[in-house]
Amino acid sequence: MAPRNKLFLGLFIHSTALNELEYLHNTAVCVDGKGTIVAVEKDCDEDKAKQTVFPRLGWVEAEVEVVKAEEGQFFFPGFIDTHIHAPQYPNAGIFGDSTLMDWLDTYTFPLEASFSDLAKAHRIYNRVIRKTLSHGTTCAAYYATIHVPATNLLADLCHERGQRALIGRVCMDQTPPAYYRDESAEASLAATRASIAHIRALDPTHSLIRPIITPRFALSCTFPLLQQLGTLAAETGLPIQTHISENKTEITLVKQHFPRSLTGAADDSYAGVYDAAGLLTARTVLAHAVHLTEGEAALVARRGAKVSHCPCSNSALGSGAAPVRRLLDRGIGCGLGTDVSGGYSPSVLEAARQAVLVSRHVVFMGEAGGGRERAKLSVEEALFLATRGGAEVVGLEGRVGWFGVGMEWDAQLVGLTVVREDGEVEEGDGGGDVDVFGWESWPDRVAKWVYNGDDRNTKQVWVRGRVVHTRK
Amino acid sequence: MAPRNKLFLGLFIHSTALNELEYLHNTAVCVDGKGTIVAVEKDCDEDKAKQTVFPRLGWVEAEVEVVKAEEGQFFFPGFIDTHIHAPQYPNAGIFGDSTLMDWLDTYTFPLEASFSDLAKAHRIYNRVIRKTLSHGTTCAAYYATIHVPATNLLADLCHERGQRALIGRVCMDQTPPAYYRDESAEASLAATRASIAHIRALDPTHSLIRPIITPRFALSCTFPLLQQLGTLAAETGLPIQTHISENKTEITLVKQHFPRSLTGAADDSYAGVYDAAGLLTARTVLAHAVHLTEGEAALVARRGAKVSHCPCSNSALGSGAAPVRRLLDRGIGCGLGTDVSGGYSPSVLEAARQAVLVSRHVVFMGEAGGGRERAKLSVEEALFLATRGGAEVVGLEGRVGWFGVGMEWDAQLVGLTVVREDGEVEEGDGGGDVDVFGWESWPDRVAKWVYNGDDRNTKQVWVRGRVVHTRK
Repeated sequence: MAPRNKLFLGLFIHSTALNELEYLHNTAVCVDGKGTIVAVEKDCDEDKAKQTVFPRLGWVEAEVEVVKAEEGQFFFPGFIDTHIHAPQYPNAGIFGDSTLMDWLDTYTFPLEASFSDLAKAHRIYNRVIRKTLSHGTTCAAYYATIHVPATNLLADLCHERGQRALIGRVCMDQTPPAYYRDESAEASLAATRASIAHIRALDPTHSLIRPIITPRFALSCTFPLLQQLGTLAAETGLPIQTHISENKTEITLVKQHFPRSLTGAADDSYAGVYDAAGLLTARTVLAHAVHLTEGEAALVARRGAKVSHCPCSNSALGSGAAPVRRLLDRGIGCGLGTDVSGGYSPSVLEAARQAVLVSRHVVFMGEAGGGRERAKLSVEEALFLATRGGAEVVGLEGRVGWFGVGMEWDAQLVGLTVVREDGEVEEGDGGGDVDVFGWESWPDRVAKWVYNGDDRNTKQVWVRGRVVHTRK
Repeated sequence: MAPRNKLFLGLFIHSTALNELEYLHNTAVCVDGKGTIVAVEKDCDEDKAKQTVFPRLGWVEAEVEVVKAEEGQFFFPGFIDTHIHAPQYPNAGIFGDSTLMDWLDTYTFPLEASFSDLAKAHRIYNRVIRKTLSHGTTCAAYYATIHVPATNLLADLCHERGQRALIGRVCMDQTPPAYYRDESAEASLAATRASIAHIRALDPTHSLIRPIITPRFALSCTFPLLQQLGTLAAETGLPIQTHISENKTEITLVKQHFPRSLTGAADDSYAGVYDAAGLLTARTVLAHAVHLTEGEAALVARRGAKVSHCPCSNSALGSGAAPVRRLLDRGIGCGLGTDVSGGYSPSVLEAARQAVLVSRHVVFMGEAGGGRERAKLSVEEALFLATRGGAEVVGLEGRVGWFGVGMEWDAQLVGLTVVREDGEVEEGDGGGDVDVFGWESWPDRVAKWVYNGDDRNTKQVWVRGRVVHTRK
């Protein structure tokens, strides 16, 4: 059956600027069979759309599917998770008393190493895609493992389930650990090329799935490998993802392992290592950036590299509190990452909530520039980072993140719980913790959603116009 | 129908010390018709319980209800919310960009003032009780409003629904605001006595519901009112709840409004004001305690007063990060409070999660005594605060908080989601974000629950042996 044109009706909410949400009430959005938004019509109901918009688009009424947001529901752009380790999902919430370096050794590497088993990979990747879709994640920048077959499987499953994704085979040719690494820089590069080739064959136009070059982080790569991956990125034009300045011990080790004499960088900063290898580009996603120096932040801004802010992870692993305002003030594009399983939650909404909360702790630490209170992120800003900011981080800013003609329909239908006059709720309302009493303004309802919402509020999810999740 | 004896079977998990959870596998717990635990038998299944325990208890098999935790489920003590403002529930998640003092004026006082409307009070109180029960809160220390009829209604509803509760009519005889306060100290005291009398008539033995003397906080009371409430507490032996040192502006204002010349205190500290009024006792619950000086903490410890730690609120309102370890190290009893709606969530599990995360931010600030890393709270410690610590805070340490003979059965049955080999989950498993793959240890499963759990994992809840919530 050919994909049908779709008419979405009701309230649409999306970011128009960092600190601004637009509320489009009684609006019609038309999405064609390719999943592209072809009309956004304000003050428009079903009849009016049929009478005035359909003729303009050349649409035949009988061939259009109509989807309405009920009273109290709204359409919102799908969330973009700019940093998530798909294979680590079973470890979500398991930290013991570890911090980054021992957490990797104790929990992460043993689990990732086991992805040589494709049946296990299928089980976990299937679940993580289902789970993130149910939370409204329409696009994810995934780290896989070093294994080509399992990485390709992750790409296949995303393609099949319809989740937009960047898929990165993880490159690491240096200890730790001995039992889980590429044999050499050459082997790492060859395996990366093999995975890229698979994804290109799967989705030649990158309509949904795209490869992303993924040096795990500086410490797990030799400098020649970093350089070769930089060259590969330049050759292919593909995006890059890696970690930076997550943890203070890590930063000290990077300085020790990558002296200027080795890298030829101007200084021995962490960002300088990536820059010297050609990995600091406008298509680079840097996860964490908790402890960047002013000089490094300036370099990142100059190169146009982007930052994936992962507050759940940074708090849980005790890494620190990233000064997001300082990065934004420098014009660095920022999005949110769940960083499963450094982050405990697969939900970008949880990442948004923690971004708001952690920003208050940045205030307590006096880390903000230009007046301490400025460090605070508002609910609106966190939602910008979760959608439009994230789109910029993963290089999709012209395609997804908000509702406009020419953009693709990656969206979620959000519903909140209505409390009756007797203080009860209707049976089968789906539950969840966002209770609306009826007198709340729409900005207050959105704030309630950010603070107490979960996957129960995400009723349906679309990617490129296709339904990819429906809440039962 | 007379209440029946109950036999609970399966895995029981509870705190035996601050940083220690005990896992009682294959255990039988017998609860009599009054809701008291009369036997805890390890290595015991249904047959063995019937053959060896029932005869000892004089129980007749046909009259016993059997409740089993299925494979993968466990019984856990009910949560104790040591600080929650029931009337503020509709504002959960609504903050704008306010901090404590303007948040009170903008959001809190107008909503509380509207509780002169009993129908509105019924709607909101009914919902908040249902909601907190669904999250496993078996006992809550509630602040109501200044209104006696609405406060009494809250007590009635808790009694009817079976939630253990401390109910406090809020005392405030001083601006702000003019439209919402007691007319005088005398009127405040008379209204408090009226509410106490109602609760005594409702539950003469305080088996479930207990009044609690509730000066809102120093700034909203004249010193004579504080003194009279101190006297009332001494006369009646009733517990006391109030706020302390939540926000730095508040602390400055307290110093200005309560000079030593007025209070006769040894210094002009916040804790000193309460102490001078006779309100700092072993039965006092102090919410927040974010910015106590060393001298104040020593005074609180000397008086045996307890602290309700409210991390969700302290972060959301930008109040600060309470140094819980420092308080615990002084021997001050601590529990967790949701502080709805300064806190955004009605869930004590969310408060436990945030207590863990915020304690890492205390480390970042270098606030811990005896080595910075010591500030970190473990999952086990957060669960202690949520149960056994909370029981001590509200004066119920001999009755609830863990499973032992002579304790009352306030408990929740917790279930986690099992991921099948194909990466799917069973239809109708209830959902939730705690996915178990099967290889996790029990401590890891508990950690997963703390980091990702919600009300979907709380399958059933009991207070004094009575079912008060069943998840549909």
